[in-house]
Amino acid sequence: MTSDSTIIKGTGVVAGIAYAPAIWVHPRPELPTAGTTIADDAHDSEFERFTTAADAVAARLSARAETVEGAAAEVLKATAGMVTDRGWRRTVKKNITAGHPADYATVAATQKFVEMFEAAGGLMAERTTDLRDIRDRVIAELRGEDEPGLPDVTRESVLFADDLSPADTATLNPELVVALVTELGGPTSHTAIIARQLNVPCIVAAGRAVHEIPAGEYVLVDGASGTVTLNADEETARASVASSRERAAIVAQWRGPAQTKDGHRVQLLANVADGNAARIAADTQAEGIGLYRTEMSFLSTSQEPSVEEQAAVYRKVLEAFPASKVVIRTLDAGSDKPIAYANMEHEDNPALGVRGLRIAWGNEGILVRQLDAIALAAEGRGEDAPTWVMAPMLAREREARWFAELCRERGLTPGAMIEVPAAVIMADKIMPHLDFVSIGTNDLTQYTMAADRLSPSLAYLTDPWQPAVLRLVKETCRVGELTETPVGVCGEAAADPKLACVLTGLGVTSLSAASTAVAGVGAQLAELDLAACQEVARAVLDAPGATAAREIAREMILG
Amino acid sequence: MTSDSTIIKGTGVVAGIAYAPAIWVHPRPELPTAGTTIADDAHDSEFERFTTAADAVAARLSARAETVEGAAAEVLKATAGMVTDRGWRRTVKKNITAGHPADYATVAATQKFVEMFEAAGGLMAERTTDLRDIRDRVIAELRGEDEPGLPDVTRESVLFADDLSPADTATLNPELVVALVTELGGPTSHTAIIARQLNVPCIVAAGRAVHEIPAGEYVLVDGASGTVTLNADEETARASVASSRERAAIVAQWRGPAQTKDGHRVQLLANVADGNAARIAADTQAEGIGLYRTEMSFLSTSQEPSVEEQAAVYRKVLEAFPASKVVIRTLDAGSDKPIAYANMEHEDNPALGVRGLRIAWGNEGILVRQLDAIALAAEGRGEDAPTWVMAPMLAREREARWFAELCRERGLTPGAMIEVPAAVIMADKIMPHLDFVSIGTNDLTQYTMAADRLSPSLAYLTDPWQPAVLRLVKETCRVGELTETPVGVCGEAAADPKLACVLTGLGVTSLSAASTAVAGVGAQLAELDLAACQEVARAVLDAPGATAAREIAREMILG
Repeated sequence: MTSDSTIIKGTGVVAGIAYAPAIWVHPRPELPTAGTTIADDAHDSEFERFTTAADAVAARLSARAETVEGAAAEVLKATAGMVTDRGWRRTVKKNITAGHPADYATVAATQKFVEMFEAAGGLMAERTTDLRDIRDRVIAELRGEDEPGLPDVTRESVLFADDLSPADTATLNPELVVALVTELGGPTSHTAIIARQLNVPCIVAAGRAVHEIPAGEYVLVDGASGTVTLNADEETARASVASSRERAAIVAQWRGPAQTKDGHRVQLLANVADGNAARIAADTQAEGIGLYRTEMSFLSTSQEPSVEEQAAVYRKVLEAFPASKVVIRTLDAGSDKPIAYANMEHEDNPALGVRGLRIAWGNEGILVRQLDAIALAAEGRGEDAPTWVMAPMLAREREARWFAELCRERGLTPGAMIEVPAAVIMADKIMPHLDFVSIGTNDLTQYTMAADRLSPSLAYLTDPWQPAVLRLVKETCRVGELTETPVGVCGEAAADPKLACVLTGLGVTSLSAASTAVAGVGAQLAELDLAACQEVARAVLDAPGATAAREIAREMILG
Repeated sequence: MTSDSTIIKGTGVVAGIAYAPAIWVHPRPELPTAGTTIADDAHDSEFERFTTAADAVAARLSARAETVEGAAAEVLKATAGMVTDRGWRRTVKKNITAGHPADYATVAATQKFVEMFEAAGGLMAERTTDLRDIRDRVIAELRGEDEPGLPDVTRESVLFADDLSPADTATLNPELVVALVTELGGPTSHTAIIARQLNVPCIVAAGRAVHEIPAGEYVLVDGASGTVTLNADEETARASVASSRERAAIVAQWRGPAQTKDGHRVQLLANVADGNAARIAADTQAEGIGLYRTEMSFLSTSQEPSVEEQAAVYRKVLEAFPASKVVIRTLDAGSDKPIAYANMEHEDNPALGVRGLRIAWGNEGILVRQLDAIALAAEGRGEDAPTWVMAPMLAREREARWFAELCRERGLTPGAMIEVPAAVIMADKIMPHLDFVSIGTNDLTQYTMAADRLSPSLAYLTDPWQPAVLRLVKETCRVGELTETPVGVCGEAAADPKLACVLTGLGVTSLSAASTAVAGVGAQLAELDLAACQEVARAVLDAPGATAAREIAREMILG
């Protein structure tokens, strides 16, 4: 770096280094306010103007859906579908008939739908970004302006934006968009999820400062440290990119099973949300599934599926790994993943509410039917393909005893997520009932730091490198060793190669991460002896904070 | 107990034993639904019918306000004021003009206001109970039915209700209402607060089962264990009541300063919310103030008061204890106590949001002006009247360093609330910066158990006897001893005499509780040697859960 380089700091969510000119997602149009009225006899032509514009936007989104595949195409089609939504168009028409011009009629109609979606909460509320996105596209179209959103990318570029909507990112070409930087967002925002999927270096929550960066200016992005450097020395920057690419090549060649340089085995598993994701995971070096999030398959179900129907869903996941371990988490409904048939009442703090195992504590049948379904789906699987079942949000010895009994009655292997601080503190009472535990670092961090993991304003607290959380991991491993209980980690922490080494040093026996992260973790582990992992772990536990911990690990672990 | 006695279990919030017949708060009227319309020419007379009813209700509430004093009178006056609210009456009129009969018009108007209040959230949302209360009173009046709510109590009785509104409880006579039992509510509900104020045995969250108890039936209520016993053996019951009264007499005679039987001193302090409460505390055996909740004085302020204005508020509290320690907590705005000038944005989980010290982390000025005000208010206080200042929601070493520096620059003694689990786990890094810490067991329990402390459905998790939380207290005391940092407790846990003994056994050096709890705690401590406290503490830490912990302490500690 030259001495006059400027560094902007955000939250790095996908590691990797890129050096390229900045491009900006086209700005959103200024929204009209109420005020102007149109003549009564112009209502029809005004609504036609709106229809033409909306149709054009829908057509463009559909056309772009044709040029991409998989989830990206689905997102674009869904967004295009919202532009043609009859209820929304009817509301626009009503507003025009009331005398508002088409642009304001669109704004007011969208606002109404946004409020409805927000009142519905949860996943519906997340769709509001898409709603605002189509509103902006239609307004730009009405005014003959450039369509807001992703510009045409013709050379390698770093994409900057306030925040990215699904429609923005659906057609991203990772060959040309070599990094993503957003002002807003958090580690679990849409931008971060897409970046992980595409394996593009990404920084979120970089703050207002990014707006000082003009399009065309070269920037150096380091997704591991979360920094954007302006006026970086070109030679140094290109060298960093080259070594980062070398690293990627090493990772691409890594083959499992995972072990440290001196042969200490660590089981490396994949987190999945459905049968599809399980099949993708089967194509990686993952040795099995470390976390199947049951609830993701039931989010859109209004009534509880029958045992047979549930078994069919579980079977799809199990079939992807016919000769490997699969760890199924029972329904973690509630909080940001409300399920119609399980979550009833409004809660002021849903993350601290009746969620996870607590739903079953008051309604045992819902758990019993799940366990019956899992047992049914697992019938006939061999000894090399164990089916483990774990309870989310377990906090007490009584819950562990109860859950384990229900599992064992059905021949299932019982375990628990360690994500409530109390579960760590009471581990000596809880673990004797269980055959394994898996630490959910995301929620454990949320509760240990008392900071909402989805709040961008508190990303500095929910950093997975918080020594407070790593000390709880250490304590869990200590009790795990005493009680001979295997201790896994299945949160985002397991996806960070350097943090994975720290976790191994702390005594974790298995790591489960997104499929895309598996090889990077395996390759990193292969470069360190267990003793080195333990040394880094000790140093990190003694760090005063997350930033210091991350720095210590970066200095001690090369690669 | 006879063998055919039935026991209903709830959450005991005020200890004490009572044996008396049950009485029920008059049931709420059945609410009318839309459907009937009234003739156009009847609108005026219908509205007059409503006005007459509403005026009668307001008059009755105001008259009752005259018969009581202090906070109770204020509550009744405020409720009477809502019945005369013009906006609400106007909405009723509009509904009548639309053809609805007076009763349904009242229901619909109230519903509109309830929704507005709920959307506003926080304290406003809590007022909705009052709104529904006046709706029910007006409807009963319109129909010529008994006014719902508290019946006339003519002999010693145990009062049962679904839940109690401020209007219900304002005129409670603790001479006659010897215990309170509610189906709903939690340890911090209105019922619990009033019961503590009146020092009447109280059980909340007792569940639907209480509805099986007919008015007039004798019940035995044990507020410590949270049990309601039907068909109790009369002789045993009366003996329990007598020994409970004896206990009360001992407590009334206790004089401080607090110490164990063998002379181990524990500083016993009071929690206060304003100058008024501080003056009340000064009349008890409390040795000073252990927690002044700054934010309670600013809840209704829309703009930040000037330093001089803030100093005046602090001065009122300090003046109540001119020669004693006063511990001031800096603004703990946010979560359920939003303050207009400090909390801006909507949060999905406000308890895990930007609250306490975090507001100042992004806005140092707000803290600096508070500390300036405290320093100004504390000017001229002698060495026997130290002013300590503590930060709420502190979680990291950096925050401790920063806060301590700001305090010391102003000659103030810096400390922190220990209420985020991370603060316990990182205590070795945090405490060296501070001169004292005070454990806020309510929030610490909320985060450790990952359960909203205000959620009645999760009261079984937020029990202050959770061994997980007590283990964190122990750990805090361990580091406190190593770093020579005094460790206090200022949550509800400190108000429970038996739990106070356990805390003392764990190494806590000061306890701060509601004024009404001070003598009970002091009297209990005086009956145990320190070694006995330590023995109970050890046993409780090894208990598998909260219920077992409480039982163990009850068996080991007499009195």
